[in-house]
Amino acid sequence: MKLRNNWIILLVGFTHVASAQVEVLGEREKTYDTVDSLVVRSVFDEALINGKSYNQLNYLCKVIGKRITGSQQAEDALEWAQKEVERYGTDRVYMQSVEAEHWIRGDKERVSIDGDRGISLKSCALGGSVSTNGPLQAQVIEVKGMEDLKNYNVGDIKGKIVFYNEPMDKKKINTFEAYGACVSQRYSGASEAAKYGAVGVLVRSLTTLTDDFPHTGSMGYTSGTSKIPAASISTRDADILSQYIADSGTANITMNFNCYTAENPVTTHNLIAEITGSENPEQIIVFGAHIDSWDKGEGAHDDGAGTVQCMEVLRLFREVGIRPRNTIRMVLYMNEENGNRGGKTYAHRAKLANESHICAIESDRGGFSPRGFSIDATSDQVAHVASWEGLLEEYGLHFFKKGYSGVDIGPLKNKENQVDSNLFLMGLYPDPQRYFDYHHSDDDVFENVNQRELELGGASMATMVYLVDKYWYLFSR
Amino acid sequence: MKLRNNWIILLVGFTHVASAQVEVLGEREKTYDTVDSLVVRSVFDEALINGKSYNQLNYLCKVIGKRITGSQQAEDALEWAQKEVERYGTDRVYMQSVEAEHWIRGDKERVSIDGDRGISLKSCALGGSVSTNGPLQAQVIEVKGMEDLKNYNVGDIKGKIVFYNEPMDKKKINTFEAYGACVSQRYSGASEAAKYGAVGVLVRSLTTLTDDFPHTGSMGYTSGTSKIPAASISTRDADILSQYIADSGTANITMNFNCYTAENPVTTHNLIAEITGSENPEQIIVFGAHIDSWDKGEGAHDDGAGTVQCMEVLRLFREVGIRPRNTIRMVLYMNEENGNRGGKTYAHRAKLANESHICAIESDRGGFSPRGFSIDATSDQVAHVASWEGLLEEYGLHFFKKGYSGVDIGPLKNKENQVDSNLFLMGLYPDPQRYFDYHHSDDDVFENVNQRELELGGASMATMVYLVDKYWYLFSR
Repeated sequence: MKLRNNWIILLVGFTHVASAQVEVLGEREKTYDTVDSLVVRSVFDEALINGKSYNQLNYLCKVIGKRITGSQQAEDALEWAQKEVERYGTDRVYMQSVEAEHWIRGDKERVSIDGDRGISLKSCALGGSVSTNGPLQAQVIEVKGMEDLKNYNVGDIKGKIVFYNEPMDKKKINTFEAYGACVSQRYSGASEAAKYGAVGVLVRSLTTLTDDFPHTGSMGYTSGTSKIPAASISTRDADILSQYIADSGTANITMNFNCYTAENPVTTHNLIAEITGSENPEQIIVFGAHIDSWDKGEGAHDDGAGTVQCMEVLRLFREVGIRPRNTIRMVLYMNEENGNRGGKTYAHRAKLANESHICAIESDRGGFSPRGFSIDATSDQVAHVASWEGLLEEYGLHFFKKGYSGVDIGPLKNKENQVDSNLFLMGLYPDPQRYFDYHHSDDDVFENVNQRELELGGASMATMVYLVDKYWYLFSR
Repeated sequence: MKLRNNWIILLVGFTHVASAQVEVLGEREKTYDTVDSLVVRSVFDEALINGKSYNQLNYLCKVIGKRITGSQQAEDALEWAQKEVERYGTDRVYMQSVEAEHWIRGDKERVSIDGDRGISLKSCALGGSVSTNGPLQAQVIEVKGMEDLKNYNVGDIKGKIVFYNEPMDKKKINTFEAYGACVSQRYSGASEAAKYGAVGVLVRSLTTLTDDFPHTGSMGYTSGTSKIPAASISTRDADILSQYIADSGTANITMNFNCYTAENPVTTHNLIAEITGSENPEQIIVFGAHIDSWDKGEGAHDDGAGTVQCMEVLRLFREVGIRPRNTIRMVLYMNEENGNRGGKTYAHRAKLANESHICAIESDRGGFSPRGFSIDATSDQVAHVASWEGLLEEYGLHFFKKGYSGVDIGPLKNKENQVDSNLFLMGLYPDPQRYFDYHHSDDDVFENVNQRELELGGASMATMVYLVDKYWYLFSR
C-alpha cells in the first residue's frame, strides 16, 4: 500500500470539484470523482489485506475482556486504546473526564419456579436494578408487554412478580425495529409494575433466538415509584415459565440477587484522538463507538467491534495518506450501556467550548457485513450521502436512508447542546440478522465476529469520514 | 398465516397488470403491483415465523450428514427429501436417474515434510485424485499458481512434487471472484504439472482465512497426461511449508493416501417435485440446489442450505396460497461437486423431451443473508428483474446484476441443450464474506448457519419464483 501513498496524497489535495461522473442532484452538483474511487479502493484494500481491527478486537476481548463502567477492565481498555492510537499518526490524544454511576452485579443470580424440586431459570439482573434483599418469594403474573399491563389493576398485581413476556417480532427484517418495539418492558417495566404494587419483575430476554442465555441490558427507575428488583430470563426459560403458568394456573417464583449501585459515582473517561484539519481545523467531524460493555461475554460485537473500527479509521487515514481538510476526531465513549454519561458529557463540553461539528458518525450495531448508513439529517443531507451510492455499492454499501444514528452521538443534536444547526448524525448499518443472537449476553465473544465483515466495517467508516470531510461544504449550505 | 390465504389467492388471481407503482422501463411497463407487495410480505412473514429450512437443515446435517455421490448418505438424503416435499402440496414428485462416478477417499491422508522428526501437514486428497500407491517421496517445488508454472521447465520439475501456493485475493469484495481467479490450480494443477514430469501436487486450500482445515474440491485429469496424485493442505500449513522452503532452500515431502474412483459408475438420482401451472402447464420455471456434498463436514452451507431453501419454496407457495401460472419445478441435483452429472443429465433429458423452460434459478452460495440475484440473461431481462428492486429492497435484496448463475443450471443454456432461446438463469446471491471460511472443509457444519439468514434465503427464492412466474411474459418477448 505504501507505494501508492504519495500520489494519492497529491490527488486528494488536487481538487475540490469532481470532473468525472458529475450528475445533477436537485440544485446541486454531484459529489464524487475518480480520485475518490481510487482513495476508497485503497482504503478497502488496506483494510482487507493489512487491517488491524480483528487483532485489536482479539486483544480487547481476550486480554482485557468485558468492561462495564467503573471496572478495572474499563480503565485498562482506555489505557490500551490510548497507547494504540498514539501510534497511528494522530495529532492529539487525550482523555475527557466523565462522572458515571457504578453498578455491580454481585453474586450469580438465582431465580426459580418454586415447587418440590424447583425449576431453575437462567437469569441475570438487569443493569441498574436493586437487589432482592435476600430471597424474594411471590406469585408470578404474566403480561405480554407494557401495553398488556394496562389491562390489569392493582388488585391483580399487588404483591406479585410481573413477568413481561413480549417477544421480539421476528417478522421485522431490521431486527433493531423489533428491539425498539419492546425494549420498554426491560427499561421501564419495573417502575410501571411498581405503580400496581408489584414486588419484582422478570423480563423475557430481547433476542430473536430461542436460547439459553439471559440477555442483560439497562433499566431505570422513575422517581416517585418504589424501586423493585428486575431480572431477565432466557427466551427458552420464558417459554417454559409461560407454559408452566398455563398448565398450573399459577406459579410462585423466588428471585435472589445482590446487585447494587455504588454510593458514589466514579470518575472515568472518554478517549479522544484527533487529526487536525489542514484547511478548517476549527470544524470537526467526530466519529466514535463505546469502549464500555456489559459485564457479560466480552462485549465483542457491542461495542468492541465499533471501538476497533474507529481506531482503524485513524490507521487507514495514515496508511492511505489522507490529509483531512477539517479536524477528524475519534471518541471512544464510556458508559453507553448504563447511563450514557460519556455521550452526554462529550456533547455538553462541546457546547461549552462552542465547538463547531459538521457531522457525527457512530458504529454500534455490531461487526457484521456493512450495508450502509442510517442517517439522522435533513432530506437534502440524506440525498447528498445517498448520491455516493454509485461509488460505494461495489463495496456492498447500498443502504443510505433517514433513520436513527446512535446513542452516544444523540446528545450532540439535543437543543441544549447543538452549536451548528446543520449538524447531522449517521450510524454504520451492518447486516442486522445476527446482532441480537449475541447482544448483552455471555455469547457476545470474539469467536462470533468474522474477520472480513469486521474489517469491511472499519473501511466503511473511514470511507464515510473521508467523503464527509472532502465534501463538507455541501452539508453546511 | 392461514387466515390470510384465501384473499391472497383471490388477489393473486385477479390481475396481470399492475395498477399502482407503474413506471416506465425502456419501452416496457413496470412490473409489480400492490398485490405483489402483499404476497411478498406474506412469504417473508411465513418464513421468519414458521420457516422450516433451519430444522430441515438440522436433520440433513446431523441425522444424514455428509453425502458424496455414491454414498449411502446421498441416497438417504434423496429418500428423506422426497418424503418431505410430498407433504408440501406438490402435484408430482419423482426421481430422475443419473449415472455418475463414485470417488472414495479411503484412509486418512498423510502428508509431511521429511526430516528427523517430520512435520505433519493438515491435508486431504482432492476429489477425483488417484492414490499415491503407498508413500510417495519427492522434493517439493513451490510455484505461485498456474501462471507461475510457466516460468519453469521440465528440468526444474521432473520427479518433483509441485506445491501450488497462490492465495485467494482478499481484496475482492465478492469472494467468489477471488475463488474463480485461482481455482484452476486445484482443478487442473495436477495435469499441468504432469506435463513437466511432476509426480504429485499439493495445493494451498482455497479460503481467505488462515486456518487449520484442508479444504477439498474437485480436480480432473486431462487425457493424454499421466495421472498424478493431488492433495490440498491448510492455508496455515501452506504458509509453514513455504517458509520452510525459503529457510532451508529445499524440502522433501512424503504423500500417502489411497483414494480411488470405483471401476463402475453408480446409478443415482435427481429429485424432482412440481406444482403444475394453472395457465401454462407446459412452461417450466425450474429452481434447485444440489443435494450431494463433499465428504467433509456436513455440507451445511454447500449446499444443504440451498437444498432446504428450495424445499421451502414449495412449502411457502402452499402456505401463502400462491397458485403458479406456469409449472414450477424443484430439482435437487446429484453430483454437483464432482462431475455435475445431475445438472448435465437434467438438461439433456429436458432437451430430449423438448421441454420449454422460462427460467432456471439456483441457490448454491451458502445460507447467508441474501442480497439479491446474479443473473445470466440479456440486458433487457436483467433490467426487468432489477425493476423489482423497489419491491424487494425492504427485504435487504438490492443486488440484481448480470453475472454467473450456478453450476447445476448452466447446462440448460448450453447450445446443445437449449430449447428456448429466451431461457435465462439466476443464482441467489447471499452476502459472500463468510462462504470460503467453511467451503469444502470439516467446518462446513450446521452450527455455522444462522437461522434468520437461512430462512431469508428461502423466502427470497420463493419470491423470485413467484415474480418470474407472474410476469413470465415479459421475459419471452
